[in-house]
Amino acid sequence: MLKKSCIEFVDALSSKEPVPGGGGASAYVGSIGMALGVMVGSLTVGKKKYADVEADVLVLMEKGQKIIEKLQVLVKEDADAFYPLSQAYGLPKNTEEEIRIKEETLQAALVKATLVPLDIVRCCTDGINLQEEFAQKGTRIAISDVGVGVTFLKAALEGAKLNVLINTQIMKDQVLKQKIETELSELVTTYTAKADRIFAEVQNAITGGK
Amino acid sequence: MLKKSCIEFVDALSSKEPVPGGGGASAYVGSIGMALGVMVGSLTVGKKKYADVEADVLVLMEKGQKIIEKLQVLVKEDADAFYPLSQAYGLPKNTEEEIRIKEETLQAALVKATLVPLDIVRCCTDGINLQEEFAQKGTRIAISDVGVGVTFLKAALEGAKLNVLINTQIMKDQVLKQKIETELSELVTTYTAKADRIFAEVQNAITGGK
Repeated sequence: MLKKSCIEFVDALSSKEPVPGGGGASAYVGSIGMALGVMVGSLTVGKKKYADVEADVLVLMEKGQKIIEKLQVLVKEDADAFYPLSQAYGLPKNTEEEIRIKEETLQAALVKATLVPLDIVRCCTDGINLQEEFAQKGTRIAISDVGVGVTFLKAALEGAKLNVLINTQIMKDQVLKQKIETELSELVTTYTAKADRIFAEVQNAITGGK
Repeated sequence: MLKKSCIEFVDALSSKEPVPGGGGASAYVGSIGMALGVMVGSLTVGKKKYADVEADVLVLMEKGQKIIEKLQVLVKEDADAFYPLSQAYGLPKNTEEEIRIKEETLQAALVKATLVPLDIVRCCTDGINLQEEFAQKGTRIAISDVGVGVTFLKAALEGAKLNVLINTQIMKDQVLKQKIETELSELVTTYTAKADRIFAEVQNAITGGK
């Protein structure tokens, strides 16, 4: 069931190698969350009971698949952006010249390493919006999977948030730092609340509000 | 970076095949969350700065590895338990005899399909306890990864919760249903709060409380 290479991903994650790390893991967990929405779509189409919404669900599934693919690309982009940053941290700083080079290299790498998890956050917000529609139009027999999917997308968003924040703390460009943190804060506030609301609605649908 | 078989897991998840589903995905996301804790451990051992806690961290890493392996086994067990349930749902119910057989088969399969996600919940609570210690003793440079890990374990716990609840709703054995739902409710209340507290502490450590 759990393929060998999935175990390898977890093994690679738990090692001291710089990548994959928390940013890439967030993108991956987001893709798993989105896949659960697409699964609900797969279970809905072709069912007579849901013929009225079939065209809508097919569009949702296509959008969901695009988000999965984007998040999978972001796993790789996070590693590509983080590696130079981890290398920059290791540069020598014995002379004034070395200190200057290290700082410049670090700041350049930092911007890239910050924008990737911000992109993961944005992608998860798109995923949470889609799950809301899957919750409305998807088959009732798999409603729990929409709830599981939305809680994974929320966790991925929060994980990516920490990866943005750990980098903006040492960012020299205050204008960029402010711009990134403002967008981040707005997205996190709006979409964690939205994810919580969808999750609660799914749980109520399962238990009848008990 | 993202191995082919990891993409296959996401593909299999998004299909209409009965397994893997939300329960197995929860166990898998829990294992990813725990792996981030073990990664923080890996980055801590061998560092002079953390020599005092090295023995403790090695024990934490061993415990974390056991939780990862247990969760990976639970991915498979969830599939093994869910498949007979999905088959039972498809049994005919044209005669009284068929109705009786279907109900008996369904209820037997249901108990197994409920106990596996409950086990996933328990396993995630162990993981959240471990992350608390990784947050205290792990290297400061990877503190964000403890936060990401704990939010994944919380999401896995909440995902597994929905998979317990969707099954207990149709469970005939009211004593067992009550017992399971009481344990579930207590664990979810205690450990989502604990996970939120650890996550907030990590975020404060990153941003200096801003």
